[in-house]
Amino acid sequence: MSNKNYIANLSYVQKRDFLNSFDLVFCDCDGVIWHNLFDPIPGASDAIAYLRAKGKQVVFVTNNSIMSTADQLKKFSKCNIIVKEHELIHPAKTISNYLKNLGFEGLILCFASSIFKQHLRENGFEVVEEKERLIDGSVLDLRNAIYNKDPIKAVIIDIDFNLTAWKLMRAQVHLKNPECLFIAGAADPRIPFGGNELLGPGAYIRLVEEANQRKAKVFGKPGAELGELLKVMFNIKDPQRVLMVGDSLKSDIIFGKNCGFQTLFVLAGNMEQSEFEALQLNKMDRPDFVIEKLSDLSNLL
Amino acid sequence: MSNKNYIANLSYVQKRDFLNSFDLVFCDCDGVIWHNLFDPIPGASDAIAYLRAKGKQVVFVTNNSIMSTADQLKKFSKCNIIVKEHELIHPAKTISNYLKNLGFEGLILCFASSIFKQHLRENGFEVVEEKERLIDGSVLDLRNAIYNKDPIKAVIIDIDFNLTAWKLMRAQVHLKNPECLFIAGAADPRIPFGGNELLGPGAYIRLVEEANQRKAKVFGKPGAELGELLKVMFNIKDPQRVLMVGDSLKSDIIFGKNCGFQTLFVLAGNMEQSEFEALQLNKMDRPDFVIEKLSDLSNLL
Repeated sequence: MSNKNYIANLSYVQKRDFLNSFDLVFCDCDGVIWHNLFDPIPGASDAIAYLRAKGKQVVFVTNNSIMSTADQLKKFSKCNIIVKEHELIHPAKTISNYLKNLGFEGLILCFASSIFKQHLRENGFEVVEEKERLIDGSVLDLRNAIYNKDPIKAVIIDIDFNLTAWKLMRAQVHLKNPECLFIAGAADPRIPFGGNELLGPGAYIRLVEEANQRKAKVFGKPGAELGELLKVMFNIKDPQRVLMVGDSLKSDIIFGKNCGFQTLFVLAGNMEQSEFEALQLNKMDRPDFVIEKLSDLSNLL
Repeated sequence: MSNKNYIANLSYVQKRDFLNSFDLVFCDCDGVIWHNLFDPIPGASDAIAYLRAKGKQVVFVTNNSIMSTADQLKKFSKCNIIVKEHELIHPAKTISNYLKNLGFEGLILCFASSIFKQHLRENGFEVVEEKERLIDGSVLDLRNAIYNKDPIKAVIIDIDFNLTAWKLMRAQVHLKNPECLFIAGAADPRIPFGGNELLGPGAYIRLVEEANQRKAKVFGKPGAELGELLKVMFNIKDPQRVLMVGDSLKSDIIFGKNCGFQTLFVLAGNMEQSEFEALQLNKMDRPDFVIEKLSDLSNLL
């Protein structure tokens, strides 16, 4: 038997102990409840219903702020899972919370989806209206674009498929000012998509961090600041009684481990079991429990 | 006296020995001959004239393929330096050479300036006509953009201020195919601009290299492949008789050191002497000689 703790291999007593060991579940969505392009993953709703029937509070923690909360709740509903607004956590929400708590005022340069920026505006924040302009190749044009005089007080990086090299330069210039906040949402270094692991926002966040020698406060997975916020929001006294469920080792599992939560890795569509077995994971990277798909949690006992 | 070898501090004999120690000079342009936005640096033309009068062959090796060769030669002419076409080396040229030597045929996905792509086309290569499209935020739109079926045979990354996150994802997908060439031009991790060190193409090249676990062949500074090509082009038997001159430690000096050339670091506008003094450089990063500005080379003896 491998040192990977498959739920399916546990004895009845071990399963019971596992089920009794947590009260709160933080559950990822993409790759766990549905695939990227919205193919619901069969049986996910039964698993969530089972956990709730066993008295567990289930909260969905996603890095996906590309869709509005309303649309995400509809998506859950189509999967036969009823989720209330406070049971869905995403970076646009956590960052709005953080800025509100801070009493933040000022202009924000935000690299994220239009839905994300809309969320910030609806919460009373002022976001730069980015012109989707092209630099024509002259350095003069580049200078005018990046040394823009907007009084930026915060730079936010989340998922932005249209993020350009010159915009990151512009962010870098503003972030030279130590009073300009540096905030990140989804910080996945890679995004699983179409069978490949493609560059995620975490890769660009890291570039700016390295180049400017300052750290972003990260309110998406696997950010430490998100963990602190969740502990306050859900009044978590004992992190070991929280189970973090997800399909990404680099985003969900590391996040859970860093927070002191228990972790359950879902192989789902993202990773073959043989591929997972072949990984050399050290203790801090290794999920506490492994399951093929979420539906294997239904009728555990 | 510091362990940094300032030309100004050398004795007459040391200056003479230095001047006798090289036959060929590879000289950077931006920050050495002129500043980014084309303010000629006073006295650069005298220094070049002096080196030529002393029988040195001077070749300009720039990472700047944003301007056409013709425009760059005009720029030199305005600085009172006459440069012939074969005395100017830039990534669009070295990459064209490499592909020609290879007998390369096929479609190229090229992230570079329009001038760079034009150069490739004029040399008979077929470059994807990139649509400057925005991903609307839906993952379906993203999928259609990055999983495009163009039969790409090479991916080239050079300076592209408009390079987007989704285009890098597209490059990543093509580069999963080991037969698709991965080629880089300018590979500066940082570009000095407007008093800041901003993210350069090298940062993005590194991201793709790490994510796809394959190395690019780099035909701009500080790429090893550029060094090999220059050694062939200029029939270099003894690299120690070549002097690499530049204002970037991470691009010019490392390049020169890796090639076995002598190196001369020009502080010019990019770095204060005190800032340079404070750097902790190990032997492999330390320039052999240091000068405040190129004009200090004029009338050396």
